[in-house]
Amino acid sequence: MAITTGIVGAAGFAGIELVRLVLRHPDLNLVAVTSNELAGTPVAVEYPGFTGATDLTFITHDDPALETCDLVFLAVPHTAALSMAPALVARGATVIDLSADFRLKDAAVYEQWYNTPHTQSELLSRAAFGLPELFRADLTRVHASREAGEGVLVACAGCYPTATSLAAAPAVRGGQAAPDGVVVVDAVSGVTGAGKKASARTHFCFADENVEAYSVASHRHTPEIEQILGLQGRLVFTPHLAPLNRGLLSTVNIPLAPDAPLDAAVYVEHYRTFYEDSPFVQVLTAGSMPKTSSVVGTNNAHIGLAVNASARMLIAVCAIDNLGKGAAGQALQCANVVCGLPERRGFDAIAVPV
Amino acid sequence: MAITTGIVGAAGFAGIELVRLVLRHPDLNLVAVTSNELAGTPVAVEYPGFTGATDLTFITHDDPALETCDLVFLAVPHTAALSMAPALVARGATVIDLSADFRLKDAAVYEQWYNTPHTQSELLSRAAFGLPELFRADLTRVHASREAGEGVLVACAGCYPTATSLAAAPAVRGGQAAPDGVVVVDAVSGVTGAGKKASARTHFCFADENVEAYSVASHRHTPEIEQILGLQGRLVFTPHLAPLNRGLLSTVNIPLAPDAPLDAAVYVEHYRTFYEDSPFVQVLTAGSMPKTSSVVGTNNAHIGLAVNASARMLIAVCAIDNLGKGAAGQALQCANVVCGLPERRGFDAIAVPV
Amino acid sequence: MAITTGIVGAAGFAGIELVRLVLRHPDLNLVAVTSNELAGTPVAVEYPGFTGATDLTFITHDDPALETCDLVFLAVPHTAALSMAPALVARGATVIDLSADFRLKDAAVYEQWYNTPHTQSELLSRAAFGLPELFRADLTRVHASREAGEGVLVACAGCYPTATSLAAAPAVRGGQAAPDGVVVVDAVSGVTGAGKKASARTHFCFADENVEAYSVASHRHTPEIEQILGLQGRLVFTPHLAPLNRGLLSTVNIPLAPDAPLDAAVYVEHYRTFYEDSPFVQVLTAGSMPKTSSVVGTNNAHIGLAVNASARMLIAVCAIDNLGKGAAGQALQCANVVCGLPERRGFDAIAVPV
Amino acid sequence: MAITTGIVGAAGFAGIELVRLVLRHPDLNLVAVTSNELAGTPVAVEYPGFTGATDLTFITHDDPALETCDLVFLAVPHTAALSMAPALVARGATVIDLSADFRLKDAAVYEQWYNTPHTQSELLSRAAFGLPELFRADLTRVHASREAGEGVLVACAGCYPTATSLAAAPAVRGGQAAPDGVVVVDAVSGVTGAGKKASARTHFCFADENVEAYSVASHRHTPEIEQILGLQGRLVFTPHLAPLNRGLLSTVNIPLAPDAPLDAAVYVEHYRTFYEDSPFVQVLTAGSMPKTSSVVGTNNAHIGLAVNASARMLIAVCAIDNLGKGAAGQALQCANVVCGLPERRGFDAIAVPV
Repeated sequence: MAITTGIVGAAGFAGIELVRLVLRHPDLNLVAVTSNELAGTPVAVEYPGFTGATDLTFITHDDPALETCDLVFLAVPHTAALSMAPALVARGATVIDLSADFRLKDAAVYEQWYNTPHTQSELLSRAAFGLPELFRADLTRVHASREAGEGVLVACAGCYPTATSLAAAPAVRGGQAAPDGVVVVDAVSGVTGAGKKASARTHFCFADENVEAYSVASHRHTPEIEQILGLQGRLVFTPHLAPLNRGLLSTVNIPLAPDAPLDAAVYVEHYRTFYEDSPFVQVLTAGSMPKTSSVVGTNNAHIGLAVNASARMLIAVCAIDNLGKGAAGQALQCANVVCGLPERRGFDAIAVPV
Repeated sequence: MAITTGIVGAAGFAGIELVRLVLRHPDLNLVAVTSNELAGTPVAVEYPGFTGATDLTFITHDDPALETCDLVFLAVPHTAALSMAPALVARGATVIDLSADFRLKDAAVYEQWYNTPHTQSELLSRAAFGLPELFRADLTRVHASREAGEGVLVACAGCYPTATSLAAAPAVRGGQAAPDGVVVVDAVSGVTGAGKKASARTHFCFADENVEAYSVASHRHTPEIEQILGLQGRLVFTPHLAPLNRGLLSTVNIPLAPDAPLDAAVYVEHYRTFYEDSPFVQVLTAGSMPKTSSVVGTNNAHIGLAVNASARMLIAVCAIDNLGKGAAGQALQCANVVCGLPERRGFDAIAVPV
Repeated sequence: MAITTGIVGAAGFAGIELVRLVLRHPDLNLVAVTSNELAGTPVAVEYPGFTGATDLTFITHDDPALETCDLVFLAVPHTAALSMAPALVARGATVIDLSADFRLKDAAVYEQWYNTPHTQSELLSRAAFGLPELFRADLTRVHASREAGEGVLVACAGCYPTATSLAAAPAVRGGQAAPDGVVVVDAVSGVTGAGKKASARTHFCFADENVEAYSVASHRHTPEIEQILGLQGRLVFTPHLAPLNRGLLSTVNIPLAPDAPLDAAVYVEHYRTFYEDSPFVQVLTAGSMPKTSSVVGTNNAHIGLAVNASARMLIAVCAIDNLGKGAAGQALQCANVVCGLPERRGFDAIAVPV
Repeated sequence: MAITTGIVGAAGFAGIELVRLVLRHPDLNLVAVTSNELAGTPVAVEYPGFTGATDLTFITHDDPALETCDLVFLAVPHTAALSMAPALVARGATVIDLSADFRLKDAAVYEQWYNTPHTQSELLSRAAFGLPELFRADLTRVHASREAGEGVLVACAGCYPTATSLAAAPAVRGGQAAPDGVVVVDAVSGVTGAGKKASARTHFCFADENVEAYSVASHRHTPEIEQILGLQGRLVFTPHLAPLNRGLLSTVNIPLAPDAPLDAAVYVEHYRTFYEDSPFVQVLTAGSMPKTSSVVGTNNAHIGLAVNASARMLIAVCAIDNLGKGAAGQALQCANVVCGLPERRGFDAIAVPV
């Protein structure tokens, strides 16, 4: 029987991608899509690609229709999830949060980077971290709670942390990474990553034909990556913006331990074993590097590996769709796991080829 | 039971989009994808978006695997279909041809515009024209032949003729168009329309940040549009190239008959009635105009309508994905109709929203 | 001796392009660049391409520095020029207005299309129309007034009217155009044409990978084109937006008179003669069509010509930079003419080639 | 008196940008532009942006016109310069080589990375390295030789080495960089960097909406950067391709020495002092990061600086136009220096602002 589903903040870029994915999902029944700003506007008017495919209309965040939902996605800015999630969980809903509010396990770190108090430390401690390939046991735990009739919360990983951690985790967890080396991450995102708000940054004429770094040494995804990989104080993360809609490429430079191998093929083998039960991750053959265009519209992550032997550095490159595996896709994948559905249910396996 | 399916010329842009669509189709079983140039190369190596989704490898056009196919798509250059289709039809296959070889009913017109003899006039006379919204009876006829066990051939409409004819046909067939007026069509296509061959035209650095008209007063889709709409000698068609991958917009200027109405809303109503049994066509409300991005990756066609009263001109604008409704999608839709499957089977209804 | 120059509304896209052009101009001395919104901000902070090239800082529109300027460009929204121009002209300044406020010679037409009263009919009657290739005598007239010490006003033509009129005027004025034919214009602009204001229209993620028509049968440049070409009620003008920064292509379909020739080469010859004293206009050889990328950053206009003989239609295609010949370049060209400087002074002749 | 100038390989992207720059240069007289492939084709036919600006026609590499040139630019693939430069220098010409043939001072390193013998070790030892900001004395030396009537050779730095070295050199030479730290460079280039040859890599439909890393741990600019900065074996360099025409951004991660300061403002001050006599380099204020769009069409380099204190890493980001300061602009700048002209002669200081 279909799971009654709502999406809060459905008019933003991650939200509307979730609308698309949930509408296609055979086991979910989307009944509520909220946007305080666009309440009353049909989805197909704001996003004409939905014309003929749905009659759903945006409603306000406090519309009673949301109360009927067993599964609720929160695609809202940080602090908004902090205020919404507790009541939803309390009434027994399964809440999948795409915001940053419950990602950082240490509330003090959250407060330092987001400049706002974290008011829900108890719920924070119960939330699962939504990055199934690296924290599957955590999701299994909340699946069991859900089966027991409890409300549950999943805090999905951010876009840069997802791509970066998928690229680095096998080497870090496998002990090939130098235990005190500094990991340098340079990542590039398409402009959907900057959100729907019209601004100088997202203006076509400033984004087009331009590449730039931003939030250098100060991006909020830094502590999240450090937490996932255990790299506190040893991470240099620089995000960049490039003129494309979707796509995120993270180039991760991992200093190798003195006894680590220097043959890229060894790492390909290791990574493939590491991800053998992760259907969305593809480790490319040595010598191949991923393209963001190969994963657009999907929940896939493609990883390429190379070694610079003289500098003893593993270069691991991961491509995802920032709105797919980096946001809406990951949220749906987490929902599948927590609801006991097959992990790939509702997903397209193939990107539009050109 | 699944229909055994082959795609000839599967490595080109229309071909590979067909591969994607057929792999997702619940009633088709793709067993042969051919490319003489790439024979031996896995599909996922040439198009890495297929990684993990298929093990298919390109084979040559004359590989015996093609012989087992009941349904064969020809995504080959013109003249190649002319030489391949007869044997396939003769052995009883259902052939869906994406090339121009069997579109023009008058072989002399073909010979004039394509500078090559048409050697298959008998087969030409039996071929159905593949534009279901406007020639459904023709497809129903070959469906019956197929049911009777015969080989059949469908000549799918080209990309510009599809968008242009969907925009113009209701007014032309409905008598609102002036009977001797000249219809002016200015259309814009994304660069996938120029094909996979690397050339100065398709070089990123020449296509990017540029718009230009090409083949002015000489494009081969001119006689095809004239044939569909009955506009011989009364069509001015100018195609343009713009810097996007997929998407085709045709702006069609239709002089109105002396007694035709001048209210856009009347045309919206008329067009909606005209297309009420055509699930892929959406006629927008008066005042709305279609965006190509709203149909990318789908088989949908969006139509917007306006009237210039003083010049007595109906402006009908149609947006399609040139590789979707303009090529691979249309071919699959025709295959659905000819094979007796629901017209929408295997299609996504919703474009990626941003 | 350098002419003291000011630019009002210098922070918008046309305004900042003027800043660039005036700073390079050997005979102009730029002393005032105004923007009420950005007053106090250095030009090089808002537009970092100016770093190291100028210390100018935006000032308010009413800053006294403007009073010292002999030459004042108005790059402000319509109605703002209406209120600013009179005092400037009255104090003897040479005013080059890029807005629409003084373009339409019939104040009633202005009031109908812009929904606001035209309060300056006397000044309107004295203003020259700023499209030197077609109205050079008008500019010569105000040059004489300026020489006589009077304040003068030039109302520069808009972007679409400029490209469209340059493409059509030789055939219309030469009598080859059918005297009562309807001229169909489909034009495409880059996103700078939509202005600097961040909005859904100018958001990268909505403009990228998209082509659409807008303001169909209702764009305000319609009466301006009709006025320039004498086409009242016989013009169908449809603008489109494409994903590029700069560039405007106008495809103009001109029905030919019964006795007009049908050979494109004849029109090439005629157009070249027509423009032989216009250094910025290049008429391409028959068979060649202009690219917008060939004129970006310049004041050039490239024109290509073809004939559809059966439909008796001349297709004239003109490419300009919408911020160059379509706005700032044209304004500077007009200033050169009115100030008695060589027409090409201060201009680059060559676009960046790729 | 103007210097008679020739460009060998003038039809490629660096070559044609040089044609543009040299045509605008007040002290150079361009008489020979060669392209074996396009000999006989007017420049303005291949690159229509030159229409009306030059009558030059491509000639073959061995055309006698080249013999008359005092100043010769070689914009040819590697190995071609190796065979052409000696005779030109021998006859007394000033040769500015944009290829890689004379950049690596150790012929063995060249032979290892380029897989071809270096046949001109004597000339190699006399060549100056063309990166004026870092090797001005070397260019002054060949200027003196030229004054003495000798033929001279300048080997211009490559695009990635230029941006990377400008970003790193002040910290490396100033001693703030850790003496044995590994420098990680992630750089992004526009597609003009991949050259004019039409290929899968440069096809619009594969480059558009895509970011990818390439030549990971194997790019030929690696030894060049190592040589410039003295980083043998301590450099990890990963180039990326993004969907824009021009622009190159290099993000350089420099581990800091134990006693180095951790305040970005200190580095801004240091860098500004370092570059105070370098008119093309702009060091941005702390907190600002460069945009590639700010330098397109110019010879400028913009540098932004930040420090990650916990990881003790200086992040230096440099933006250039890969065809400007990364190729043609740098070559012209070197020519100015070697010929005794002002360094900025012939250059535009301001990029097109949007």
